[in-house]
Amino acid sequence: MASKKSEFPQVQPGGSLILAWQAKGKQILIVGGGEVAAGRIIHCLNADAIVTVVCPSSGLNAEVAFRVAEGQVKHVARNFEPSDLDDADMVLVAVDDPAASTAIWKLCKERRIPANIADVPSECDFFFGSVHRDGPLQIMVSTNGKGPRLAALIRRLIAKKLPPNAGNAIETIGVLRTKLRAVAPGHADGAKRMAWMTRVSDTYSWEEMCQLTEADMDFLLRYYPENKVPSFDELRLAQGYPEPQRLDLFDGSFGFSVGA
Amino acid sequence: MASKKSEFPQVQPGGSLILAWQAKGKQILIVGGGEVAAGRIIHCLNADAIVTVVCPSSGLNAEVAFRVAEGQVKHVARNFEPSDLDDADMVLVAVDDPAASTAIWKLCKERRIPANIADVPSECDFFFGSVHRDGPLQIMVSTNGKGPRLAALIRRLIAKKLPPNAGNAIETIGVLRTKLRAVAPGHADGAKRMAWMTRVSDTYSWEEMCQLTEADMDFLLRYYPENKVPSFDELRLAQGYPEPQRLDLFDGSFGFSVGA
Repeated sequence: MASKKSEFPQVQPGGSLILAWQAKGKQILIVGGGEVAAGRIIHCLNADAIVTVVCPSSGLNAEVAFRVAEGQVKHVARNFEPSDLDDADMVLVAVDDPAASTAIWKLCKERRIPANIADVPSECDFFFGSVHRDGPLQIMVSTNGKGPRLAALIRRLIAKKLPPNAGNAIETIGVLRTKLRAVAPGHADGAKRMAWMTRVSDTYSWEEMCQLTEADMDFLLRYYPENKVPSFDELRLAQGYPEPQRLDLFDGSFGFSVGA
Repeated sequence: MASKKSEFPQVQPGGSLILAWQAKGKQILIVGGGEVAAGRIIHCLNADAIVTVVCPSSGLNAEVAFRVAEGQVKHVARNFEPSDLDDADMVLVAVDDPAASTAIWKLCKERRIPANIADVPSECDFFFGSVHRDGPLQIMVSTNGKGPRLAALIRRLIAKKLPPNAGNAIETIGVLRTKLRAVAPGHADGAKRMAWMTRVSDTYSWEEMCQLTEADMDFLLRYYPENKVPSFDELRLAQGYPEPQRLDLFDGSFGFSVGA
């Protein structure tokens, strides 16, 4: 049995289930208007949610007041009332009133609305983390509550180490994926499409992916039926581009030669 | 108004709301027993969920069959029936039957159960991403459906670039945080606690955080009332450790000197 165990990933308990929640067009109710609420609001707006803030006007901080004034969020200028939950798909509470927070949490659970009560881990269906964003790319760092500050440090470290064009490259590959589905739409093509897209991702560097033009992609799709992917230079040559003048860097410091 | 706008983070629409779902002790129903289901199962088990797999025995792949045999998941050996939803807190469907999938999605929405139908973005409350795990640290990479393969590439890149001891350092800081709450439990201490923990995170390197012993932490907590954090060497000296013999590396290659 021991040899069989090693075949499959070992369970590592104690984590969270990290999810990319699809908030587009969903109603998210935010109770409170302070600094924590402001952080929740920007997360929700970045995910295209319809955000309603319930909070007396006197309780709005500058950022939340700005979002209200700009019409980025709806504002209900009073304390929470249970009827506020009627249309809510998700509820985020960030008020400095433990009794009120717990009452809202209980109402949410009766109505099966996913909810997060800030600073009360036992009254949270989910936590937030530190998120890096670059176009379609989102990277979320969670320390599962052990060190939020370290999560932010790691997020900044990651941002520095990523290929600078990662977001663009992913956007480009997304366009290619859409074009591929248009030329090979069949349900039965699913596995073949996935295998070919994998080959594309493995063949080109991040820089090359960014450089793929619409014309390059249309040409590249001609290789799909045979399940082939040419190198970037081959792809360009096949379209009649001149031979590339390539700089080959040898061992990083001693010199270079101009390739044929 | 333009100057006011720049004060606050600009909204970047088009993303997901990335959440660390608290699945511990929650009932997650997985419909299907193939490769995709196997991937869902390990995610759920790593988050301490109670997992039930509904699938005829003939449809289980080797990994899912192994998890069933090991008792890691419950198994209902038949096709899905609506009563399977009775106890479910979340539903993940991975079967090759679009009509059945859509029927399950509709039932989940009637009952307000969060659900994910694999490969059908319009029938998903949430997507999964590529997750790096190191103890309490979880890093999730999402390309918002544009390039799952690139998400995996970026996850591996991140894993290589992280401090090798990040998980341990976070675990240690988590212990310190718990000890701090024990000595300064008051609700009013919240902001002071947070500020001091931030100072701790900013003062020590990842390596130093890993080296903090229980005795170091207990000693360190004596500095909390004055809101101070000594350097690692000061902390050790104050406890009677000998002067550190430190290797100072100058410009990475030319030499080093043994510090006092």
